[in-house]
Amino acid sequence: MALRGWAGARFGDARVAMLATVRPDGAPHVVPVVFALVDGTSADSVVYTAVDGKPKSGRRLQRLANIDHNPAVSLLVTHYDDDWSKLWWVRADGSADILEHGAEADAGLAALRGKYDQYRAVGLQGPVIAVRITRWASWQGG
Amino acid sequence: MALRGWAGARFGDARVAMLATVRPDGAPHVVPVVFALVDGTSADSVVYTAVDGKPKSGRRLQRLANIDHNPAVSLLVTHYDDDWSKLWWVRADGSADILEHGAEADAGLAALRGKYDQYRAVGLQGPVIAVRITRWASWQGG
Repeated sequence: MALRGWAGARFGDARVAMLATVRPDGAPHVVPVVFALVDGTSADSVVYTAVDGKPKSGRRLQRLANIDHNPAVSLLVTHYDDDWSKLWWVRADGSADILEHGAEADAGLAALRGKYDQYRAVGLQGPVIAVRITRWASWQGG
Repeated sequence: MALRGWAGARFGDARVAMLATVRPDGAPHVVPVVFALVDGTSADSVVYTAVDGKPKSGRRLQRLANIDHNPAVSLLVTHYDDDWSKLWWVRADGSADILEHGAEADAGLAALRGKYDQYRAVGLQGPVIAVRITRWASWQGG
């Protein structure tokens, strides 16, 4: 599902999003992620994020364990300003696949490398999370 | 559970946090919230956030419906920088109570008014969400 207008542009251009998942015990989990939004020529939008070389613990990341158990995820992009008339957020809910390799994983990594120059220096070898967006929501103050 | 050191200070001083909850259908939900962290004289920390007068839909907010169903929540404070060595986040997991009125609701509202001058102009009449923190996690790059 693609989103047009101010909300779609702000989401796609944002440098960071919050990825919320649900732990196997039913509690929520949320981490910041860098991501790339790909709007297909169809009406479908997919968000890619990857496990990269920034330092992390050695075990399987909690976000991956959560998605293995429950693929429902929510991604939030938001802007805070002490002038509360300038607050806004855009949220994308969807279903996540974990791509260990393959053509779509490669396309996701390419989209991430295209958006973030930082990936010239930071390794990008882990699995790719592909979120198929099924619902958009947005809000702005003022 | 109180958190000391860099992570506790950064969390407490932050102007906005992400509140993740779980919908009755098991999918995650995440919204930005303004909040106040109160460290008790004991080892317990509580985060207060309230439904305020910023424009919202008329029905019961999704976050409240979610907490009614499942009190497990996660709160994330994070900083993004294009210099990825400067990234950090602090996360607080806990259990939420919805306080419609009473002494603790009043204390939570007072903490919010003390932190945010904006509440001189924005109404603060809704229920207070009190999150009892049971687990802290933090990460920094570099």
